Amino acid sequence: MRILVTNCNTTEAMTKEIEAGARAAASAGTEVFARTPSWGPESAEGWLDSFLSAAAVLDLLRNIDEPFDAVVMAGFGEHGREGARELLDVPVVDITEAAAHLAGLLGRRYGVVTTLDRTCGLIEDSLHSAGVDRNCVAVAGAGLGVLELGDEARTEAALLTAARRVRDSGAEVLVLGCAGMTGLDRRMSALLDVPVVDGVAAAVRLAESLVALGLHTSRAGSYARPLDKHRQWPSG
Amino acid sequence: MRILVTNCNTTEAMTKEIEAGARAAASAGTEVFARTPSWGPESAEGWLDSFLSAAAVLDLLRNIDEPFDAVVMAGFGEHGREGARELLDVPVVDITEAAAHLAGLLGRRYGVVTTLDRTCGLIEDSLHSAGVDRNCVAVAGAGLGVLELGDEARTEAALLTAARRVRDSGAEVLVLGCAGMTGLDRRMSALLDVPVVDGVAAAVRLAESLVALGLHTSRAGSYARPLDKHRQWPSG
Amino acid sequence: MRILVTNCNTTEAMTKEIEAGARAAASAGTEVFARTPSWGPESAEGWLDSFLSAAAVLDLLRNIDEPFDAVVMAGFGEHGREGARELLDVPVVDITEAAAHLAGLLGRRYGVVTTLDRTCGLIEDSLHSAGVDRNCVAVAGAGLGVLELGDEARTEAALLTAARRVRDSGAEVLVLGCAGMTGLDRRMSALLDVPVVDGVAAAVRLAESLVALGLHTSRAGSYARPLDKHRQWPSG
Amino acid sequence: MRILVTNCNTTEAMTKEIEAGARAAASAGTEVFARTPSWGPESAEGWLDSFLSAAAVLDLLRNIDEPFDAVVMAGFGEHGREGARELLDVPVVDITEAAAHLAGLLGRRYGVVTTLDRTCGLIEDSLHSAGVDRNCVAVAGAGLGVLELGDEARTEAALLTAARRVRDSGAEVLVLGCAGMTGLDRRMSALLDVPVVDGVAAAVRLAESLVALGLHTSRAGSYARPLDKHRQWPSG
Amino acid sequence: MRILVTNCNTTEAMTKEIEAGARAAASAGTEVFARTPSWGPESAEGWLDSFLSAAAVLDLLRNIDEPFDAVVMAGFGEHGREGARELLDVPVVDITEAAAHLAGLLGRRYGVVTTLDRTCGLIEDSLHSAGVDRNCVAVAGAGLGVLELGDEARTEAALLTAARRVRDSGAEVLVLGCAGMTGLDRRMSALLDVPVVDGVAAAVRLAESLVALGLHTSRAGSYARPLDKHRQWPSG
Amino acid sequence: MRILVTNCNTTEAMTKEIEAGARAAASAGTEVFARTPSWGPESAEGWLDSFLSAAAVLDLLRNIDEPFDAVVMAGFGEHGREGARELLDVPVVDITEAAAHLAGLLGRRYGVVTTLDRTCGLIEDSLHSAGVDRNCVAVAGAGLGVLELGDEARTEAALLTAARRVRDSGAEVLVLGCAGMTGLDRRMSALLDVPVVDGVAAAVRLAESLVALGLHTSRAGSYARPLDKHRQWPSG
Repeated sequence: MRILVTNCNTTEAMTKEIEAGARAAASAGTEVFARTPSWGPESAEGWLDSFLSAAAVLDLLRNIDEPFDAVVMAGFGEHGREGARELLDVPVVDITEAAAHLAGLLGRRYGVVTTLDRTCGLIEDSLHSAGVDRNCVAVAGAGLGVLELGDEARTEAALLTAARRVRDSGAEVLVLGCAGMTGLDRRMSALLDVPVVDGVAAAVRLAESLVALGLHTSRAGSYARPLDKHRQWPSG
Repeated sequence: MRILVTNCNTTEAMTKEIEAGARAAASAGTEVFARTPSWGPESAEGWLDSFLSAAAVLDLLRNIDEPFDAVVMAGFGEHGREGARELLDVPVVDITEAAAHLAGLLGRRYGVVTTLDRTCGLIEDSLHSAGVDRNCVAVAGAGLGVLELGDEARTEAALLTAARRVRDSGAEVLVLGCAGMTGLDRRMSALLDVPVVDGVAAAVRLAESLVALGLHTSRAGSYARPLDKHRQWPSG
Repeated sequence: MRILVTNCNTTEAMTKEIEAGARAAASAGTEVFARTPSWGPESAEGWLDSFLSAAAVLDLLRNIDEPFDAVVMAGFGEHGREGARELLDVPVVDITEAAAHLAGLLGRRYGVVTTLDRTCGLIEDSLHSAGVDRNCVAVAGAGLGVLELGDEARTEAALLTAARRVRDSGAEVLVLGCAGMTGLDRRMSALLDVPVVDGVAAAVRLAESLVALGLHTSRAGSYARPLDKHRQWPSG
Repeated sequence: MRILVTNCNTTEAMTKEIEAGARAAASAGTEVFARTPSWGPESAEGWLDSFLSAAAVLDLLRNIDEPFDAVVMAGFGEHGREGARELLDVPVVDITEAAAHLAGLLGRRYGVVTTLDRTCGLIEDSLHSAGVDRNCVAVAGAGLGVLELGDEARTEAALLTAARRVRDSGAEVLVLGCAGMTGLDRRMSALLDVPVVDGVAAAVRLAESLVALGLHTSRAGSYARPLDKHRQWPSG
Repeated sequence: MRILVTNCNTTEAMTKEIEAGARAAASAGTEVFARTPSWGPESAEGWLDSFLSAAAVLDLLRNIDEPFDAVVMAGFGEHGREGARELLDVPVVDITEAAAHLAGLLGRRYGVVTTLDRTCGLIEDSLHSAGVDRNCVAVAGAGLGVLELGDEARTEAALLTAARRVRDSGAEVLVLGCAGMTGLDRRMSALLDVPVVDGVAAAVRLAESLVALGLHTSRAGSYARPLDKHRQWPSG
Repeated sequence: MRILVTNCNTTEAMTKEIEAGARAAASAGTEVFARTPSWGPESAEGWLDSFLSAAAVLDLLRNIDEPFDAVVMAGFGEHGREGARELLDVPVVDITEAAAHLAGLLGRRYGVVTTLDRTCGLIEDSLHSAGVDRNCVAVAGAGLGVLELGDEARTEAALLTAARRVRDSGAEVLVLGCAGMTGLDRRMSALLDVPVVDGVAAAVRLAESLVALGLHTSRAGSYARPLDKHRQWPSG
């Protein structure tokens, strides 16, 4: 099985990290390859970036010339997943919903720790439209931009502070709200003594599950194949 | 006062129609000018088109070289408004929310008649995130594509059928769920004997109101100014 | 265009202030005149006052002998608007819903600052039935009675304290929750650096918009004309 | 124990019927007396009537010169209960909420059959603010005005038709949505083979329960005693 | 009238206390008798205990060989009530819902004070499925196990601390969230100056009301009589 | 990895079928073994059966003397999962929530087809407490008891009828709402041309995912380890 992972921003180093996280989570027989959009924002923090990223990732998806069995969209809270479901015949799993689905199996209420406060609303909306917001009690920002996550000590301290706020709101499970946090789940879990879900890992496993069970996106209603029409894409 | 109206698709003829509808609704002292994105779909029907359109409209907005006091985004149910609010210092009104706001003043429950069933979910999500879904009882498709609306007799018949379904669901007010339907509100209202709200007209009046009252988009929280970073836009 | 503004209480001085606020917000060609109910409470703070006020305002409305094109009901959170919609053939806009509608265009979440805590529930119910409560994160009292708003320094201090609580709850936009606060919006906005919406001003502009677009209250369902029957009104 | 029952309209014959219904439901030691407001509508059907009625009933309540231990407000869906709770030191039970509370103990979902469609929204709002709307699946009008309920055969036929619609929506219990229907519960229950709750009877029993348990309306927050101020009441 | 009260745990002393509380709340002509399940947990704190208790109480109910007119299930937040409704032909009232129903008549918002935090979720779910969660603002644990309630001074102090938290969340009425707290309502009410509802007392009065009004559980839909089939009960 | 699958009823033949379904869905390296409770109902249809089953399955779980890495609870809509999470240190996945989680990845709205109408409410409550009800548009009964599913032709016809009703309500994905329907998913999907999710298969894959990612049930809050106390279990 081959899973394509798409980064939501143009930062190649982050694509590599996400790819490594996805590979670490994948089953033995699964091949993972990650791709970076050729245009868009270097990091996605807010709606402007998210809409730019959504189109860039869709543009990327229509141009992949290798076969793949499922797509993992690695942009926490970012737009685009419904469009990818229309575009592709293979299952599409977004890391936002994936993390929430698994979190829902581990505790009665969960919460999300993300980068900047300005992205919290975006994440809340994404959880709502995916139908997994019911048991989410809080989405909190750690005051760190996506590209600042490289500083490990600072990141850990900031995430812990935000995570404690989320726990005090009643969260029994934490979700890491940024693809760039992939790999921090076990360390955070040890420090906080609650399960911590990494969306990239969750999405890889859910994508594998759908493929293994022979399940495809429904073509009845919302995610019917795109109509045949003229679309002027940036990539031509 | 100058109001910029953005079409969500690349069809110039539709931009012209929308511009005419917006002008007919505007106050005496208001100047209206409409613009077409330079790339994107020729019509927006579904999430793939909507995300493509959102980025194209945002790309258009950052490149407008004329002054304007407010923006009306003329794409019913289409994405992008929150990004425009981050990007611009002037008020941004989307025709989806605008129609719902006015409909809420005219009856206890309202409904939406749109083009194709595949766009209903998009509209429902947009009403929800705008906070005006509470009193919406139905969103129904008329079985007509955006570019088929030119055939007046067929359009009217199809809209009436869908509108009656919406009324039977308890709607006391109807909203026309496509920018391309602008101008049909009075005729539909006469035929159905309920108020019918055209989003383009509603948005123009709401944009004027915000400007007149000196109200701007909040920069606290969600719609803070975009972070300074590298973004690779399609238009360069 | 002539807009009738009704105060919800019998305090003439407040009617004058509201009238001034409404005039300041109106378009050039709009004539505004305010009226005071001939009976009812001198200020409305709580359900007892609100129900008394609702009947008194409806009694006032049926006895107006001048022409008008729309009504603005200036009682924040007070009852009566649905009754006025049944009674009259012209559009009716209540300042509670009006403020919320415009607030919804300016930020993702809004909050309300009102007079006494005892009126918060009333306002929450009013926002809910108007269908605009979804994005309201807090309604907070400032600990000041309606008739104490004359003391400017104390009012400003009390409102700022309450407003900060509302912002901390996630509000990106503030609504002034009392007709008697009309005119304080710009000062509060400057002090708090968020948009502040005055319901009287918002309602005047929304009423003008409905009239300009030829929109009337729906007579299908909830707001059908009152049945012909015997009603013993206080005014005879 | 003495329970005061207030009719919501000025029709004395209906007050008598309601009084009889209340007495039939009361415990042996309970004395029931019903009163009619001295002004207001002859029947309440819609918001205009309801707001007029609310003030008239509150005016009645402040002028009762006999002792009573609790009040039953017999107007299904009509306004006023929260005002009565502020005004009085004894428990206040409204027949709308009372019927819903008991219905909730008898089945997983309930529905309401009322007089005219125009009052359905009023009832829905009343159930919501009372906090008992969650398990209500439908409120349906029977197409009969309040004062037409005297025609027994026609009433029964109309109620049965509406009741079947409500059952088809999933209601396992029915509520009679008009004080004037008191006494029809057992006949309807026999015909439909589901429990049918009469609000007048339910409210009498709930009022008795509160008195017996020494429970009073909370004065903390919403239903604090009315502020001392000038109120010009219709009755002087 | 004879009311059967079931304790949810196997602690006989608690059954006696609950029986005393129920008797104190019952009408003159009502006979109350309480029973203890022959197996299950000695106290119910959490889902494991609650599910064990639910089956044990159902097993108890099918084996009662005395006549009774209604059942009060005295386990706050515990499972089982819907099963009892299927099993029995007489009305079944659970103390969780009963307390919430009466609390809803006494204030606009209520809250629950219970034993341990681990049971809060259970109570929230129970209020939701009973359809009475809308106006509940908080469920808070006092940090005391069910079997620690005997220490009066410690219990009172712990309950007061939790109760103040609940009031600060906006509760205008308090509910005692454990059958073992029966009898503490008046003392807590005096100390806190808000109404405090005891579920056992509330349930007894509601059960009496249903019986007096001739109301039975609906057999249409959810609570139809159990299908005839083989069930292996623990009691044989 | 070893996964324990628990049937919710005492019918051994059904345990075998479920075991076969689970094995067919499992990864190569996963060992699946199914167990039957030693007491309880022969099939679970309604709350009485469900509560009996919940305790019986918990009793079974505490007595398993073989090692296992995760549990799949195979009772659609049946109670017990939260208790199992308290009891066990390994992940617990219930087939109800599992099916809903995967369905949410395949379409914007899903629906459930189950056996008898009397179990629909049970399923709705279970989806709600699992936090996955948001996008469920309908739960419909096929009019077949659990033990009647053996008649293939009749089952298929009944399921198709119910499934079409669910699709007409807007479901884009179907969920098979009974463990006994395991294996019918592909046939139903082919006939209806929408994805059909089998809860047993879904739960096996989700359980594997949790184990592979090293995720455990949270012990913070709701699912803390059971308190040390006396519990009288049926099995002693």
